Amino acid sequence: MNFAKAPLLALATILGAGAVSAQHLKPEEMIIARQAGYRTMDWNMDKIKAQLEAPADKFDKKLVLNAAKVVQAIANSGMGALYAPGTDKAAGEVKTRLKPEFFDPANKEELTKIAMNFGTQANKLAEVAEGGDQKAIQAQFGETGKACKGCHDKFRAKEKH
Amino acid sequence: MNFAKAPLLALATILGAGAVSAQHLKPEEMIIARQAGYRTMDWNMDKIKAQLEAPADKFDKKLVLNAAKVVQAIANSGMGALYAPGTDKAAGEVKTRLKPEFFDPANKEELTKIAMNFGTQANKLAEVAEGGDQKAIQAQFGETGKACKGCHDKFRAKEKH
Repeated sequence: MNFAKAPLLALATILGAGAVSAQHLKPEEMIIARQAGYRTMDWNMDKIKAQLEAPADKFDKKLVLNAAKVVQAIANSGMGALYAPGTDKAAGEVKTRLKPEFFDPANKEELTKIAMNFGTQANKLAEVAEGGDQKAIQAQFGETGKACKGCHDKFRAKEKH
Repeated sequence: MNFAKAPLLALATILGAGAVSAQHLKPEEMIIARQAGYRTMDWNMDKIKAQLEAPADKFDKKLVLNAAKVVQAIANSGMGALYAPGTDKAAGEVKTRLKPEFFDPANKEELTKIAMNFGTQANKLAEVAEGGDQKAIQAQFGETGKACKGCHDKFRAKEKH
């Protein structure tokens, strides 16, 4: 096993897709695709947040469930395949916030844990959203946000580079 | 009812979210969010396509199902809310391919039909992917692609403007 590729393979396996699915993509296409995925999750997390801040009688369960399903589906879509070694640097015009630490074999175990936890929390969020209980969704939304932040704190730089 | 807003409301209703969920977004944020959504669907459609072109014994049902779920979830996430009137023009640096025809009341009925069909086909794709039959997925993948194209042909310009 090539250690430099280990986190990629681990993530791809965890998140449910073979790394093969993105092999034909250029580094800039990988960066663009993964940023689109996070942005789409972000928009949907934002919708849930807005609902949680709304009065209980205005709480739109269906909207929250649909948004949670987007987060869940993307979390399970094998985004690990979009992290080819070297994509911690700008590819042409396309910049990234990914830190080189992402590809450090010493961080492999932590990265795997972070990625697995994100999948777990996103799945729970969709499950709880199915139930429709605003308080339960609030709590699980918090856990999901923490799971996102766990990766950001460790592997995302403040600025694109 | 304000006719200029009618297609937006129709789409928002069809796609399962209130227009309210994007009211706080600026036009450029709407354009960025919707482009991210389409790009994420595109990456996942591309993964399904690659699997359909693979030999039957290499066909990865799980990968296909996970990709189909992303397309389905985004198709049901109320993207119509990201089409505020005026977002057929560039907002600052952020360009769009959306044609002004999208907001023409004369096209409302066709737009509604196109949007509803996209949701239907994406739901069917996920349903068929659940079954795992490569030929059935191939057929429904074609129908889903046609549903995407139906909107592109009518409402998407060749270049960003």
